[in-house]
Order: sequence, then C-alpha cells, then structure tokens
Amino acid sequence: MNTLRLPRVIEETVEKIRSREIHGSTLAALKALEALEIAIEALRVDSSEEAVKAIKAFCKALYRARPTNIMLMNFLRHVVRTVERFGETSVDEIKSTVKLEITQLRDNVEKSLERIGIIGSRRLPKKATILTHSMSSTVYEILSRALKDGKELSVVVTESRPDFEGRLMASRLLRLGIPVTLTVDSAVRYFIKDVDLVLLGAEAVAANGAVVNKVGTSLVALAAHEARVRVYVAAGTYKFSPETMIGMPIRIEYRDPEVVLPSEERRRYGLEEVNVRTPIYDVTPPEYIDLLITERGVFPPQAAILILRESYGWPHMGLELGLDDL
Amino acid sequence: MNTLRLPRVIEETVEKIRSREIHGSTLAALKALEALEIAIEALRVDSSEEAVKAIKAFCKALYRARPTNIMLMNFLRHVVRTVERFGETSVDEIKSTVKLEITQLRDNVEKSLERIGIIGSRRLPKKATILTHSMSSTVYEILSRALKDGKELSVVVTESRPDFEGRLMASRLLRLGIPVTLTVDSAVRYFIKDVDLVLLGAEAVAANGAVVNKVGTSLVALAAHEARVRVYVAAGTYKFSPETMIGMPIRIEYRDPEVVLPSEERRRYGLEEVNVRTPIYDVTPPEYIDLLITERGVFPPQAAILILRESYGWPHMGLELGLDDL
Amino acid sequence: MNTLRLPRVIEETVEKIRSREIHGSTLAALKALEALEIAIEALRVDSSEEAVKAIKAFCKALYRARPTNIMLMNFLRHVVRTVERFGETSVDEIKSTVKLEITQLRDNVEKSLERIGIIGSRRLPKKATILTHSMSSTVYEILSRALKDGKELSVVVTESRPDFEGRLMASRLLRLGIPVTLTVDSAVRYFIKDVDLVLLGAEAVAANGAVVNKVGTSLVALAAHEARVRVYVAAGTYKFSPETMIGMPIRIEYRDPEVVLPSEERRRYGLEEVNVRTPIYDVTPPEYIDLLITERGVFPPQAAILILRESYGWPHMGLELGLDDL
Amino acid sequence: MNTLRLPRVIEETVEKIRSREIHGSTLAALKALEALEIAIEALRVDSSEEAVKAIKAFCKALYRARPTNIMLMNFLRHVVRTVERFGETSVDEIKSTVKLEITQLRDNVEKSLERIGIIGSRRLPKKATILTHSMSSTVYEILSRALKDGKELSVVVTESRPDFEGRLMASRLLRLGIPVTLTVDSAVRYFIKDVDLVLLGAEAVAANGAVVNKVGTSLVALAAHEARVRVYVAAGTYKFSPETMIGMPIRIEYRDPEVVLPSEERRRYGLEEVNVRTPIYDVTPPEYIDLLITERGVFPPQAAILILRESYGWPHMGLELGLDDL
Amino acid sequence: MNTLRLPRVIEETVEKIRSREIHGSTLAALKALEALEIAIEALRVDSSEEAVKAIKAFCKALYRARPTNIMLMNFLRHVVRTVERFGETSVDEIKSTVKLEITQLRDNVEKSLERIGIIGSRRLPKKATILTHSMSSTVYEILSRALKDGKELSVVVTESRPDFEGRLMASRLLRLGIPVTLTVDSAVRYFIKDVDLVLLGAEAVAANGAVVNKVGTSLVALAAHEARVRVYVAAGTYKFSPETMIGMPIRIEYRDPEVVLPSEERRRYGLEEVNVRTPIYDVTPPEYIDLLITERGVFPPQAAILILRESYGWPHMGLELGLDDL
Amino acid sequence: MNTLRLPRVIEETVEKIRSREIHGSTLAALKALEALEIAIEALRVDSSEEAVKAIKAFCKALYRARPTNIMLMNFLRHVVRTVERFGETSVDEIKSTVKLEITQLRDNVEKSLERIGIIGSRRLPKKATILTHSMSSTVYEILSRALKDGKELSVVVTESRPDFEGRLMASRLLRLGIPVTLTVDSAVRYFIKDVDLVLLGAEAVAANGAVVNKVGTSLVALAAHEARVRVYVAAGTYKFSPETMIGMPIRIEYRDPEVVLPSEERRRYGLEEVNVRTPIYDVTPPEYIDLLITERGVFPPQAAILILRESYGWPHMGLELGLDDL
Repeated sequence: MNTLRLPRVIEETVEKIRSREIHGSTLAALKALEALEIAIEALRVDSSEEAVKAIKAFCKALYRARPTNIMLMNFLRHVVRTVERFGETSVDEIKSTVKLEITQLRDNVEKSLERIGIIGSRRLPKKATILTHSMSSTVYEILSRALKDGKELSVVVTESRPDFEGRLMASRLLRLGIPVTLTVDSAVRYFIKDVDLVLLGAEAVAANGAVVNKVGTSLVALAAHEARVRVYVAAGTYKFSPETMIGMPIRIEYRDPEVVLPSEERRRYGLEEVNVRTPIYDVTPPEYIDLLITERGVFPPQAAILILRESYGWPHMGLELGLDDL
Repeated sequence: MNTLRLPRVIEETVEKIRSREIHGSTLAALKALEALEIAIEALRVDSSEEAVKAIKAFCKALYRARPTNIMLMNFLRHVVRTVERFGETSVDEIKSTVKLEITQLRDNVEKSLERIGIIGSRRLPKKATILTHSMSSTVYEILSRALKDGKELSVVVTESRPDFEGRLMASRLLRLGIPVTLTVDSAVRYFIKDVDLVLLGAEAVAANGAVVNKVGTSLVALAAHEARVRVYVAAGTYKFSPETMIGMPIRIEYRDPEVVLPSEERRRYGLEEVNVRTPIYDVTPPEYIDLLITERGVFPPQAAILILRESYGWPHMGLELGLDDL
Repeated sequence: MNTLRLPRVIEETVEKIRSREIHGSTLAALKALEALEIAIEALRVDSSEEAVKAIKAFCKALYRARPTNIMLMNFLRHVVRTVERFGETSVDEIKSTVKLEITQLRDNVEKSLERIGIIGSRRLPKKATILTHSMSSTVYEILSRALKDGKELSVVVTESRPDFEGRLMASRLLRLGIPVTLTVDSAVRYFIKDVDLVLLGAEAVAANGAVVNKVGTSLVALAAHEARVRVYVAAGTYKFSPETMIGMPIRIEYRDPEVVLPSEERRRYGLEEVNVRTPIYDVTPPEYIDLLITERGVFPPQAAILILRESYGWPHMGLELGLDDL
Repeated sequence: MNTLRLPRVIEETVEKIRSREIHGSTLAALKALEALEIAIEALRVDSSEEAVKAIKAFCKALYRARPTNIMLMNFLRHVVRTVERFGETSVDEIKSTVKLEITQLRDNVEKSLERIGIIGSRRLPKKATILTHSMSSTVYEILSRALKDGKELSVVVTESRPDFEGRLMASRLLRLGIPVTLTVDSAVRYFIKDVDLVLLGAEAVAANGAVVNKVGTSLVALAAHEARVRVYVAAGTYKFSPETMIGMPIRIEYRDPEVVLPSEERRRYGLEEVNVRTPIYDVTPPEYIDLLITERGVFPPQAAILILRESYGWPHMGLELGLDDL
Repeated sequence: MNTLRLPRVIEETVEKIRSREIHGSTLAALKALEALEIAIEALRVDSSEEAVKAIKAFCKALYRARPTNIMLMNFLRHVVRTVERFGETSVDEIKSTVKLEITQLRDNVEKSLERIGIIGSRRLPKKATILTHSMSSTVYEILSRALKDGKELSVVVTESRPDFEGRLMASRLLRLGIPVTLTVDSAVRYFIKDVDLVLLGAEAVAANGAVVNKVGTSLVALAAHEARVRVYVAAGTYKFSPETMIGMPIRIEYRDPEVVLPSEERRRYGLEEVNVRTPIYDVTPPEYIDLLITERGVFPPQAAILILRESYGWPHMGLELGLDDL
Repeated sequence: MNTLRLPRVIEETVEKIRSREIHGSTLAALKALEALEIAIEALRVDSSEEAVKAIKAFCKALYRARPTNIMLMNFLRHVVRTVERFGETSVDEIKSTVKLEITQLRDNVEKSLERIGIIGSRRLPKKATILTHSMSSTVYEILSRALKDGKELSVVVTESRPDFEGRLMASRLLRLGIPVTLTVDSAVRYFIKDVDLVLLGAEAVAANGAVVNKVGTSLVALAAHEARVRVYVAAGTYKFSPETMIGMPIRIEYRDPEVVLPSEERRRYGLEEVNVRTPIYDVTPPEYIDLLITERGVFPPQAAILILRESYGWPHMGLELGLDDL
C-alpha cells in the first residue's frame, strides 16, 4: 500500500491539519471530508478492489494527520466500514455511494451545530458574562445563536498559549458585536468570580464523561468548580470516543518546542539545555463538568456512556481495529 | 514638596521598578534601598529640617514606583519613622543614622534569605520534582541551598505570561546545574501529578495568611491543592503587610495591555476593539498554602497574624498613614 | 379560542391551584385531571373539531395555573397529543377515548405511589430519625408504608415558610402515630447531626438529575451532604421533565409578597420600601442527592436521562411546543 | 443571698433580656450595664461588705437573664473581680470605682464599634450586594460607615424566624437609604449566587474561632462557603469566650415553643402532640468563616485563641468560677 | 422440602463457602456451580417435578451459604428460572438443559475474566505502582495480563485483617514475578502518595454504583480519593445486583469474633467482656470510584443502572422473590 | 565518650523502650526520667565535669532509644541544658539540682494529665460513643475523668495492628466499667457513622499543628472528617516539637517486619521475597483535627505555633543541636 501515491488534495490537507494551520477539531474533520470527496471524485482506477484500497489509503493518511481528533476518526471509520461492506460492484457505484455518505456526514455536522446552537442558547441566562478558553466553532455557534435570541452577552477569552487561538476567537466574537475581554491564561482564577458561566468546546469526550480539549481547559474547569461557576461543554456526539469504552486511552500529543520557546529566545535567556514540554490537550474529569450540550440534548457527563452505547452498541474487543491497522 | 528636584539615582530606580525592568519584589526593595543610600550620601542641604524633608520625598517617590511591594513599603516606612524621630540635630547625624539603618535593613534581608534557604532546604525531600511559578529570589535561595545540602532536584518552571519571568528563573536554575522543564502556564494541572512539591515566592503576605504573588500563583496553588501536592510559600517576614490587619486591601495593578497584546498582533487579528486586562498579581487564599517559610521559622498561614502582632503590635487606626500621606 | 367560555369546574380548579390552596404537585395534577374529566363529560359540542378545540383549551387553562408543575404538564401534553391524533370521528368517540386515557393516568399515579411506597420503605433503616422538608404526598406514602412494614420512625419536619406546609405534613404524620418534631427552616443544620436520613419529594426532576422542590430543599440537601447524611428524593417518573433534555430551564416563580410580609407587619416595621422576594422553589443539584426513588426502581440522579430517554425518546426540537403554543 | 431584694431596675432589665424584648447581644449587654449603674448609684448600705455582696447579687441576676451572652458575662465578671479586689474601704469608694469601670466598659464598646465600623467598611468592595442574617448592631455599624465612605450597597436580609429580627434590621437599613431585599430564611441558597459578601454578627466567639449566633447563621455560612462567597463575622473582642479555652461549651437555649407555633395554629392544624424545638443560636465552625473583624483588627478565626490569650492569659482551671458560683 | 437429603457435594461446598475456606466471591460462585453440576449429574429421580424440586433445593442451599455473594445469587436465580420454565418433559431433558446452562455460565465467567483482563490492562500506565486490598481474582487477572502486555508493575498489598487474604494475594503476585510490598491495613494513607493507581475487586455492585467489597475497601478508596489517586473497580457484570434496583439493601455479615480475637488472647488481655464486632464487607460510595471495569467495557459507577437495566429490564416488585422464598 | 560504661538501669530502660515493651510515649518518657534519676543518684565521679559528661551520656542513650518521642526529647534537652549551665560547682550540687528538675518534670506531667483530664472531660457530651485508636494514657485519663463526671460513655477501640495496643486500651477501659467494642483497624469507616466523637492521643505535635501518632491515626481522622465527626487530639504541650519550627521533619521509623509477618507465616504463604514495610507512626494534617486538648487549654491545631513560640521563643538555627550532637 505504501507504493500508492496520494492525491495532492489529500497531501495538502494532511499537512495543514498536522501543522495546526487548521486549528479546531470540527474544522479539521470537515476539511478532511472535503479533501476525501475531491480525491474520490478524481479517482481513476480499474477495479472495485483498487477503489476500496485507494479510499482506505486516503482515510488512513487523513487519520494519521491528527489521531487525537475523535470526530475525524469516527467519520473516517464510517467511510472505511462503508467501503468494506461492498461486494462485487462497479467503481462508479462505490464512488457515488461513498460520496453520498460523505455528504450526509457533512450535513449532519451542519444540522448538529445548528441544533447545539439552539439548545445551548436556551441554557444561557438573558444577561451573562461568559468565559471561554481557546477557539471552538461549537461555542461560537451557541454564542452567535444566543445573540440572535436577544441575549445580552459579554465574553472573557483567554489568549490560549502557545498558539494564541484565543485571539482568533476574540476576533470572531467581536465581529458579531459581542464585547470581549482578552487576558492571559493564568488570570482565569482572577476573573472567574465575575463570570456567570464557563462555556467550552471539546476535542473528544470519553466513556466516563471526561473531556479532552486544548491544554488549560481542565484548569479553567477546576477554577470554575472552585468558584461554583457552572461549566458547560458543547460537543456533537460524533466527538464521543467509542474506543474509550474498552479502556483505550485518548492520546495526548506535545506541541513543537519551537512554538513555545523560539530558538532566538532560547539563546537570549541561555536556555539551550532546557526541556520544553507542552501538551496540546488536557483531560477535564467529569466531576468538573455540569452539562454536556449535544445535538441530542443536554445531559450530565456520566451519561456519555449512554450515547456511546446507543451509537456504537456494547463494544467488541476488535472495535479499535479501524484505522491504525489499515 | 513638589518643587523638590529628585536626584537622578532615585528617578532612574523609580523608572526601572515601575517599568518592571527590575522584576522580583526582593530585588526591587534592595535596589530602592541602594538608591536611597546613594541619594542620602549625596544630599547637600543646610538644615536638619530640609534633610528630613528630602529623605521623606525620596521615600515617597520610591514607594510610588510600586505600591504593591510590601517589603519596599515596610522598609521605607521604617526609614520615614527613623527620620521623624529626630529632634534638634545636625544634618550629618541624620545622614549617618539613616545610612546605618539602611545598612542594617539590607543586612537583615541577606541574613533572612540565608536562614530561609537553610530552613526551606530542610523541608525538601532528598529527591524531588518541584514546580515553581514565575521568578523568585527566595525560592532560588532555597533550591540553591538544597543543592548544596545534597538534595537531588528537578524543577518544572512555568513561563509566566505576559513577562516570561519563568524563562529567567529557568535560566538561573540551569546555571546551578538543576534540570529544568519549561512549560506554558496553562499546563500546570497536566504536570502537577508528577510533582512532589510546589514552592512559591510572595510579593506580600496578608494578616489572614493570604499570599499576593505573580498572577497565576493562585491557580497553581489550587491545582496543587486538588492534587494534594503540598504548597510552600517562602517569604521574609518583611513582606508581611501590617496594613491588612486593619482591613486595608493590598492593591492589585494591571499590566500594560501592549505587553500582553502588542499593537501589531492587535491589528493582525482585528482586535482593535478588544479590552485587554491582565492583573499583575493575584491572591492565594490561606487554605491552599500548607506552610509559610520565613526567617523566623515555618508555620501555617493562619499564624501570619502572630508575626504581624509581634512585629508591629496591635494596629492603630493611623497605621496606614505612612507613605501615601507624606 | 379566547372567546371560549371555560366550564366552571375548570375555572375553579385553576384558581385553587394558582392560589396554592392546593399545595402539593401530585395533588394539583390529580385535581386537574379530575376537573378535566368532569368538563369533558359535560362537554356539548357539534363537531369533533370543536371537541378537540375545547379539550385543548381546557388543558391550556389548567397548564397555565401552574406551569412549573411538570407532572401536570406531562399529563396535559399526553391528553393534547391524544386528541391531536384523531382524524374523522364522532364527538362521543373523542370524549370516551380521552376519559379512558385520563382514568389510566390516574390509575398509574396511584399504582406508582404504591410502588414508590414499597421500594422507598425498603431503603429505610429499621429504626430511624428522618428529616423532611415541606409537604410531600410521595414522602408521606413511603413513611406510611414503612410504618406498616414495622419500621420504628420519628420525623423532624421543617415548618417551611412562607406557607407553613410543614405543619400540614406534621399533622398527617402525627395522625399515623409517628412522633414528629417541628422546627424552623433555619434550624436544619442544628438537627441534621441527629438525623439518619433525609427524605424529600420533588416538583420536577431535570435531565441532569437536578431536583426542583419547595424553596429550602437545596439548603436541606446541602446541610445533609455536609453532614454525610444520605438524601433520598422520591418522585414518580411523570415528574421528570422532558423539556430539560433540550435545554429548556424549569421556571421558578415568586410567592406573593403579601404572604411573606403581610401589609400590617410591613407598616408596623416601617418596611414600605422593602423589596420582598421569595422564590417558591429552588433547584437541588444532583451531587447532593444520593438516590432517586421512582416507581421503576432506585437509581442515582445522573441516570435521570435514562428514564427520560426511555419515556420520551431522544428529544425533537419541537418537543416543547405542547402547551404554551396552543 | 436569696433574701436580698433586687432593685426594680435590675428586675425589669432582667425580664426584658430574658423575654428577648431586647434582641441583640450588644444591646442587651449595654442595657445591663446601664441598669447596674443605676442600681449601684441608688444603693444604700452600711458597710463595704454589704456593698460588695449587693453588687455581686446584681451581677448574678443580670448574668442569669441570658447566660449565653458572652459579652454580658465578660463585663459582669470584670465588675465582680473589681469589687472582689477591694479590701477595707468606704462604700462610696466602691460605688465610685465600680461606676467608673462601668463607664469605661461602655466607652470601650462605643469606641470598639466605631473602630469595627471603620475597619469593616474597608473590607467592603466599592459596590456590593451583601447578605446578612437576623439583626446585628455591629453589622449595622459597618454598613452605616461604609455608606458614609461612599460605598454603593444593597443588602439581602433574611426574616430570621421565629422572631423576625430581620424585619427590624431591614427597617434600620432602609432608614439609612440602603436598598433592602427581604426574604425567607430558606431562600438563602437561592440568593447567594448574586451576593458579593456575607456579613454577620456574633453572640459569642469560641477559642477555636467558632461563632455562636442566631440560629440559621451556620446554614448561611455553609451556603456561602459552597458558593465561594466570603463570610465576614464582625464582633468586638469582648464577645470572645475565655471559658471555651478550658473546654467549657457555650450553652444553646431553646426558644419558647409558643413563639414558633402559637397555640391557635397548633389547634388549627391538629398539632397538639407535636414536639416544637427551636434552638435560639447555632454554632458556625471556623472553616466557614473567612475573617473576624474586631476592634483590634482583622484575622482568621483560628487566631481567636491569640486574642483570648492576650486578654485573659492562659486559663486557670477556676476561670469559669465567676458568676455561676456567686 | 426440609425432608430432602442434600447430596454430599452440595453439603461440603456449602460448608467451605460458609467457613470462608473459599475466600473470593468469583471462586465461591464457580465452586458452587461445579457442585451443582455434579449433584445434578448424580440426581436420580422419577419425575420431572421431583427433578425441578431437587435442583431448586440445591440452589437454595448453595445460596444460603453466602447470601451476600451476588454473583452466586445471580447464577442460582438463572438456574431456578430455567427449571421453572419447564413444562411436561423428561428428567433427562431437564438435567441436560440445566447442565448446558451451567456450562455456559462458567464459560461466560471465563471469557469475561479474560476480557476484563484485556480492558483493565489497557487502563494501566506503562510503569506503575498499584495498591490493592485483600484478594481478588479479577484484579489478579488484570495484573497478570498487564505483565504479559509488557507493563512494569509493582504492587502494594494490604494484609487484610482479620483473614489475611492479602498474604495470599501477595503470594500469587510474587509467583508472577511482580515485586510486592506487604503492609498493615492502617498504613494505607501512608503509602497512598507513592501509588499511581488503586485497583480493587468487588463482591457486589449496586444500582447506584456503590461497591460492596472486603471491609477496609471504602477506607482505601477514601484515602485514594483524598490523595487524588484514581480508583478502578474490576467486576464482571454478573456481580451487579438487580435487587438493589428496587431498594433491597445488600446484607453485610459479621465475622466470627474468634477469628478476630482468639479466646487465648481474649483471656490474656482480660477481654472477656469485650464486644468484638467486625463486618466482613463494607460499602464504597460511587463518588470514590473513578471507573468500573467490566467485560462490557469501562464506565463511571453512575452508569451501573444502565447495565442492570439492559440485563434485567426494569424491575418488577417480585424480582427479589427468587431464592429466599423457594 | 564512647568508652563510658552506661549504668544498667539506663541500658535496661533503653532496651525496653526500643523494643516497644513500653508502648506509649508518655510512659516511655516517664520511665526514662525514672531511670535517669536512679542513674544520677548512683553516679560516683570525682569532678563536676565528669558528672556533666556522664549525665549527658545518659541523656543521649535514652534519647536514641526512640528519637521520635518528642516528649522524651524535650525533657532530655531540658536536663542537658540544665547541666550545661553549671559553672564551677560540686558534684553533689549538680546531682541534687538535676534530680530536682527531674522531679519537677514528672510532677508537671502528672498535673498536666490531670488538667487535660478535666478539660477534655468537659468537651465530651453527656452521653457519647467515642472511637479511639491504639493506646493512649492521655485519652485514658480523659475517659476516666469523664466517667467520674457522670458521663455515660461507650467506646469503640481499634485493635491497632501490628502490636495490638488496642487490646490493652480496651482492657483498661473495661476495668473502668466502660462498655468497649473492639474491631479491626479497617472497619473504622463502617463504625464512624455511629460514633459521636473521635478522641486520640499524640506522639508529637508539629509547628503547623500536624499530629504524629500510631499508624492508622490519619486514616481514622480522615474517615471522621468525611463523616463530619469531630476529632479531638489530647496531648500535653511537652509533646510539641520545637525542631519543627525550623523545618526539621519528625522521623518516622518502621516496625520490625517479623512482628508484622512472622517467619512462620512468611514461609507458609511462600512470601520469602515479599517486602514488609510498616511505619510505626503516621502524620495527621491539621485540617482533620478539630481541637487540641492540652493542659493550657483547648485550641485549634493552627495555634500550635503559639504554644511553641511561648514555650521556646522564636527558634535559633542551632535549636536542633541538642541531643544528636552530644
């Protein structure tokens, strides 16, 4: 399989996701589907076997770009299972079926985001100061909808080192007309007492209701818990990780040290020997989360297993054998 | 008094402290005493009244450079009270007496630091991973001493946004030969489970044992408390704030927005309208501090009042009328 | 629809529920069903369309009498959906079908109460001092059953300001022969250390397991949680609120100020300007509830979503469009 | 001693304090001193022995009016010790000395209240919603002072069953021009999230920093602690109980059942058999109190022992043998 | 039924289980099934009615040997229900059907243990110090598997008074080649800070996620919770107790005093009058358990109800009428 | 000094303390003083220098028998300082002075125990079930006194592995006529809910109020804290450790493995390779202790520093150079 040349659209998308040029998990998953669709459209092969093989190769490449992105993983697994189900059929049949599935996945995301926006907005008070951390499309959707619903909002955004996604979030909210206060990540406990609600996105949700999200999220949730400020996490159920049902941990990657401490600064401070280690995500335990907001409704994090159970059934041991083993 | 021209050494020192070119609280207090000594040495006046007036003016200027620095405030108040006690006497008598007092203050700081180093080192395990936040001379002293005492240490240092004093701390520790891991502030909860002890400095200690220190300190202490990692705060008793005994709060200043979000970035992200607000310090409540390490010994934060009581007596209402009202 | 004259039985029942002459939520729901049955029996209309319209109007009026009563809302929604399903049919058919449904609903309540009594009694120790707050038919059912099961009980009842329903509860329990201590609401923490169990009713149960009940309930639960006394909430599953699955908050109304501070007292104390505000209910978070006791069994509050899910399916956005929009 | 006829002023004052016609602890202590002064002024006896005996009898009678009032107990003990120190002297000497002591005690209370007002006001934010429970002269003093200091306040007052002292407190604050919200005691948890600070008075402060105050206080403090709202208790150091240093518990009395459940209501509800039990005070543990505000300054409750130690020395076993044994 | 003579294999097995010669709950259940199989094989009766009667008698006897063993109870109930379903059929048919069921139950246990081993091993870090309490086959299975998976483990085992099952566990782990530290039960808090994970077995799991296990388990879980060390409980879903869904408590038995305080020691210390009371099990509340590890996957304890619901449906009142009433 | 032959009484006492034949810390300290007195009485030397040298050698030997016994350390340090203060004087003068000091120390212990008994008894309710751990003379004194004071007590005693001192405690209490329940250490959480108070002794009290006591104490205190049962620690102030003021940790020794796992059992279970590790003491943090009961009165553990400060002044660096360096 390694002899297969990947189409350029796949290669470019993989690179953009890997380098974090595309930040958010929802965006990354959608871009991957888009690239997959284009690649399949352009696919020229002679047999259905070759088609299946190629599509699986595309999926594998996209998956490897960011294996921590559960939404991407769930989508790609769905595609792989779709193609694996084909028996004798034509290449065109495969292409059109898979493209239909992809279209549906993307539609579902769109509809889910809209539903989460509506449901989430209902949970916001009429007038509220909300704290959010890093950048999240789902949080943006709720705030945007709440504004339309006539809610009077102001938002505190953390800058979110090392990538400063908070600046992007602040910028998008400002464009909606929401007043934004930007601060450093470590000022969260200082501000939390003036905040009515913490609203966060998620990279992944585990079987026990724990949430994987941008590093610092668990600290924000802890400070909110201490101050008895409610913490809502908004995430489509496609971000729930079925692997965690059978004990597979979600992998946490480290950020490129150069981003955290540029060589120039390293030299200036005489820090050649220093060990720079910055996890990209951290894990927020369920006891610090008051509510999960999904397109299927709201529920306590301990009910995450119910969603997983209904979406994926009780797990088989082989469940995880989806993408790593292609 | 406003017609008085301040000597250049005072003006320059004031500027360096104000702009935070001089970071740490101990260092700033020592530099202020040094400048005061030079200014008094160079003082040319005709009467003891003028000498007193001038010295009080110097003190006031230095105090205003950073009114949150309790150590500086306590020292300057001591000097002001010394000169206020003079009756009829010569200018030389005043100058030599004050200089003697300053010398003693500086000696005491030196001796205190050494004692804190010895006492603090004893509280460290033989082999330990220690987490510290921002830059602190007192913490440095303990770690340095512990190394001499044969303890095997490694240290996790947070970068401490927005001024990155953590890089300076990391650099100084590396030069001692201590292995250092540098990370972003928001990764504290990620690392805390692998840490044996949190060791922090202080800008000020209040009557109820609360500690004022670089923003993020209270978040570090909270995460340590959650993880049941012990938190030690090392601070000379000259950092204890007598004003807090009569209910005066310690002022928290905000950092220059330009440092947090440089104009260039502000434009790049379209953040012209954003409200940038970053407190320089925050307050860690006594329940998250296991031990105060001072030159007089170790004790729980709730005993801070005992130190204040023995150092300053029960407070008078006029206690705070020291420096603001010169 | 506003031209429709409501039958007198509906109007009177609405008034009694609104004025809180009928206190408890179960009682109010049953009385509403009774009134509805009588009104339908007496209904004289010419077409099935008019019948449907009239029944919906009755439901709407009863619903508006106390929109916080989830049990009432669930029952009325069931009736509305029943009549909405009718196509071409006779008025008599409608009337008899609806009456049958109402009879079943009432039977179910009765059977549920009995089951809750049996299950709840099993969870009580052989000999116990139980604290309860305000008046609850469900709690009464359990205590009454436990007495029959040979358990030796004594009960501490709070008076439950402003309406003193605690006196009614005390009176009913005394008549069973159970020794009762009556105290003021604010003495709960004083008594809690001598209590073996807290047993409470509910006005509504939300998707996250939070319980809405008479104001003060959350304070009782908090004091019990602090003292590590177990808190059981007994509620039929018809009190579970499906609207909360899609983020709809349960409305909390305020009590008539005159009840809290009668005009005479207001004048006597010179309190003409005072703002009297007393919520009728408050919300007890799931972490202070050890067990929900329902007719389907006992479970932790976090499993409330499982009940809602099985009773109502995953929610549709339009779920709440039941009664407000008639 | 039982043959001694008490003067009418003593008897009347005793009755007013006992029946709680005089509510607050500070007021009761001051009224008792006043009565004592008048009684001593009017005292006509032949020997200094008789004078001492009479004064001790007055003290004993006043003490027994409300033995839980530590401030009163401390004052009376001081008077008793003063007269016990007299050797051979004239009746006039005794009378004038004791009156001087009484005048000083009253002056001290006045000065202390003023100082507590100043110190307490400093701890209030510029703009704050404050919750208080029941009636307290000391809290009133702080709020009154804060208003003069230009602070913008609004206050939530609980009605404080069964005696409704909250109405009196509300009335006094309204007359200052402070907006007041009055609510039932059990709504505390509902309001606490909108409150910036809880400010409470005290009947007594124990050696471990625990505070005895009107029943419900500990529930307010618990709810504030849960919501991370700071709790300040304001009390002159004359309310600190030296007996508690040697393990003597502070007695908690019960309120007259008739006040809680008037006979008429008892009959109406059929509650003849009910056991009505309402403690007048409860004990708030030190861990729920952030700060004690006294005339000597502010400190954590754990430092109460320092005050007691400095005011009364280390206790002797016979310490409590002051008033019970006269 | 009492006239029925039980086969020797049943009687012996009952005795071994009752005297705790067979310790663990899994082992006891398997041994009971084995005895049942042998007894059924050897059963010589003339009618199917007699066969059913005999089998039910065997089940009842085995159940009564240790009614707290939920796994045993679930298995026996399954067998009883199997035989109760028979209509007119031959004795052979009954015997072969029941034996098949027993074989399947035993196979399931075996497969479940293997699956729990695989899933549990995945949740262990690559290198870990694990604390366990008492003896558990399920924990042993996970540790054994983890060793095969290349994990580097060391284990702290408590001796587990009064029966010292910890010594047996230590011995089994040592034979695998795992380094073991053995300590007294009360040293758990001393060691917990050096432990990465607590791994425990279960006697039973209740509907609210509470876990019944060897006495001391709840203390271990509490100490781990305090130290923020994660607590995993491994238990096959056949240990989940359906009776608890309808409020039936799990019975806790007391250990023979002679085992705790042998007569000889009793005399030596003069303890003839002492009341020796030692519960065999205790109950660990769900809030101290981070994860349940079952053969169906991992989930938070609050989801135990989901398992019970899917395995047994919503409970009927008569559910418990299985074995006590035979 | 190592050439000096120690008197037999010293050697024997050292051995008894070391082997824990003498269990309690108070008893050990008193026995050491007794031995010291006898040895000094019998001392035959020619010069005061030799006398001083010999006495210091006795002290050193006794100190080394159990360096964790702070009471013993404090007493011996007092003796060493007494002899070090001697200038030119006769041997008899030294002997009589030191003996006088020893007599006073013993008298003080006796008086202190009596005072602690009186004070502690006052803190017990009239009727109470008390849990205690291991053996403590101070706890015994309080319970004995409380019995005389007419209190109705029953006591739960843990057996206290590995030395079973709980059996001794139970035996002593039974002889007083107090009903005693004896249980295993790990059943503490099972019993705690039926207990009114936990009463514990101490081996040492540190500057931050932490208490060193028999292993398991911190687990008992934790369980009591969880269950909101008050924890009182009774200890004479001679058990307060001045060394801890300057950061010296209190050493925790390990018990002889043979006592925990006798060789015979080791072989029987095949545990030759097991690492048996049992700390004799553990450290209970101040937050789990409600009150220290000393002969000077009761106070919160955070005030321990006040006692140390008043007994020993602020510490000098050389403080600890008392006995290790003789």
